[in-house]
Amino acid sequence: MTRITIPEGSLFGRDNLPYCVFSAPGTSPRVGVRVADTVVDLTVVDDVFAAPSLNPFMAQGHARWVEVRERILDLVSGEVPDAAVHPVDAVTLHMPFEVADFVDFYASEHHASNLGRLFRPDSEPLMPNWKHLPVGYHGRAGTVVPSGTDIVRPSGQRKGDPVPTFGESRRLDIEAEVGFVVGTPSPLGTPVSVDDFGESVFGVVLVNDWSARDIQAWEYVPLGPFLGKSFATSVSPWVVPLLALEAARVATPPQDPEPLPYLREKNPWGLDLSLEIRWNGQVVSRPPYREMYWSPAQMLAHMTVNGASARTGDLFASGTVSGPDRDQRGAFIELTWGGKEPVTVNGEPRTFLEDGDEVTISATAPGASGARIGFGEVRGRVLPAR
Amino acid sequence: MTRITIPEGSLFGRDNLPYCVFSAPGTSPRVGVRVADTVVDLTVVDDVFAAPSLNPFMAQGHARWVEVRERILDLVSGEVPDAAVHPVDAVTLHMPFEVADFVDFYASEHHASNLGRLFRPDSEPLMPNWKHLPVGYHGRAGTVVPSGTDIVRPSGQRKGDPVPTFGESRRLDIEAEVGFVVGTPSPLGTPVSVDDFGESVFGVVLVNDWSARDIQAWEYVPLGPFLGKSFATSVSPWVVPLLALEAARVATPPQDPEPLPYLREKNPWGLDLSLEIRWNGQVVSRPPYREMYWSPAQMLAHMTVNGASARTGDLFASGTVSGPDRDQRGAFIELTWGGKEPVTVNGEPRTFLEDGDEVTISATAPGASGARIGFGEVRGRVLPAR
Repeated sequence: MTRITIPEGSLFGRDNLPYCVFSAPGTSPRVGVRVADTVVDLTVVDDVFAAPSLNPFMAQGHARWVEVRERILDLVSGEVPDAAVHPVDAVTLHMPFEVADFVDFYASEHHASNLGRLFRPDSEPLMPNWKHLPVGYHGRAGTVVPSGTDIVRPSGQRKGDPVPTFGESRRLDIEAEVGFVVGTPSPLGTPVSVDDFGESVFGVVLVNDWSARDIQAWEYVPLGPFLGKSFATSVSPWVVPLLALEAARVATPPQDPEPLPYLREKNPWGLDLSLEIRWNGQVVSRPPYREMYWSPAQMLAHMTVNGASARTGDLFASGTVSGPDRDQRGAFIELTWGGKEPVTVNGEPRTFLEDGDEVTISATAPGASGARIGFGEVRGRVLPAR
Repeated sequence: MTRITIPEGSLFGRDNLPYCVFSAPGTSPRVGVRVADTVVDLTVVDDVFAAPSLNPFMAQGHARWVEVRERILDLVSGEVPDAAVHPVDAVTLHMPFEVADFVDFYASEHHASNLGRLFRPDSEPLMPNWKHLPVGYHGRAGTVVPSGTDIVRPSGQRKGDPVPTFGESRRLDIEAEVGFVVGTPSPLGTPVSVDDFGESVFGVVLVNDWSARDIQAWEYVPLGPFLGKSFATSVSPWVVPLLALEAARVATPPQDPEPLPYLREKNPWGLDLSLEIRWNGQVVSRPPYREMYWSPAQMLAHMTVNGASARTGDLFASGTVSGPDRDQRGAFIELTWGGKEPVTVNGEPRTFLEDGDEVTISATAPGASGARIGFGEVRGRVLPAR
């Protein structure tokens, strides 16, 4: 039996307990939980964790999530069977859940305003609808990939004069986002109320919504982004349970005008997550999630208010997290103002992504016992176009 | 044993052989094939058809589709075991495949021009990108429903002055479309060439992309349609194999300017499908699919040119099929010009859908032996908002 020691300052203490899907030499992919620098094989807790995906467990609903979290806490606070204990560096981490539908929102006022200025310099930066509803759209579920997957630079049509040209994207970018994973499904015809967010959403991941700005700029009118986004979206291997985030809850920024009744929250689901973006190892931005205008409970209520069903494994992401300051911007198009104001990365002026670049997004939040909890990271490296 | 008689003029002769997923009293859902007014249980041909979905068979690839079609043709041309024969009226038809990702295109020049005039009266009806690429966007896979599913009128935000209002959609509409179902998956990073369409796509369904125009008009800038579409998309229960459509292939209309090389087809996949829209039983439009500007092979090549993978069960739809004439328009917003020019349905002037209305979209095409083949129908009835 093993007793897991949690070092002072660990981001993976007993307040956190994020889930993953992992394999170790000789084991098939299965669900584990992280404690300090250890992954504990959860098949010792319940057979549902023998699946290579969190979906079966997530589908069991909120009461089970609470009960099982208690059992996991008991387990990792005592003696754990040796065979269930793996150093995190010795396991392979996989995609933690099967994505049903993927929706991407646009919930940062700073980001939406910046992008409005950059994409539509002759118009008001925010559209008339922006403060009335969380603007969002569907993305490609089939190209959501786990952290560490290499990102092949996409090719496509780019605006040209007089005609478009075809070739590799020259404005490859990131978007640092936070993603919410639906556990409890909701039936067709039945909206999920803002107050039911905690019963519906199982957990939280970090998301890098890779974006080819030149492809996007040419294609996106009038039906929205398509190939500029659909080549890859990376997610972190750790799903932090919403149950671990009670201490991170904060009010959203003041919402003016007051939203319509279906978007009004009794207890707002603003979240005090601190993100960090590293570009080839150097921190270039620290986006504050607490600045997000719309809460994830509002996103889910909006996404289903027309009666759309939600399925276990639905992933909805916040959109780029950008704060008011330059070094809080969550996309390089904002950080470098469309490429006109390079940032210095390891001594070199940089604008958009070059082949070989690696981007890592990480985050922490306040945990229940006063220490911080970690979300791990989502990481990806750019490979040359094929 | 039963010998199936095919009446003169049947749309379901041996040229067609569309697949479905059905159940009969005492049988679990499984794959069948339609011949005349009979559904033949295909578990007598292969165990792969015991699945409640076409996906496992579709994933086996083109060579298997060809081989199995020959075996089915042999079977239904001779004596079929009695237990495998069901009158079509005696079976329950289910969703024929599991939808992976759903993409909706916008490939009719007539429709895109009409919608441009209606949604953006002060601009050019076609955007500058429209003749260079098949414009498309991702829809909600989780709310694709089989024909016959009732459609609850959605509620949502509608533009108001000075602020939006919330309530049931007052401009509920249809879009008559043709959908293409991917069989053979393609890996991340590898585009599917226009010439590989026939190896990749398994078959064709009819689609009704229900649309709440008031919700859509308020929400869709800048990221595209979302809740105005995501409440429901209906598909026909029959998947007509692409192998049955060789005689329906035609050239697409002239494409000027010439598309970029990745969109150029050696043998175009225009399709001579004749659609018919019935509103409470009365035919109100006959959209000609052969008028579609972009072919489905071009749609698939475009959808994957950035390296996006395609999965078995991916559904991509053409967008509304509209011809040049008024009685060839595939959406009521076009047919009634935004509600300003009502059509007469069973003696009454009508614009958008009312509660209790039923819409049926059907189609036929030329078959290999000179007779026509049928796609069956996709049908849905509007229920009052909840």
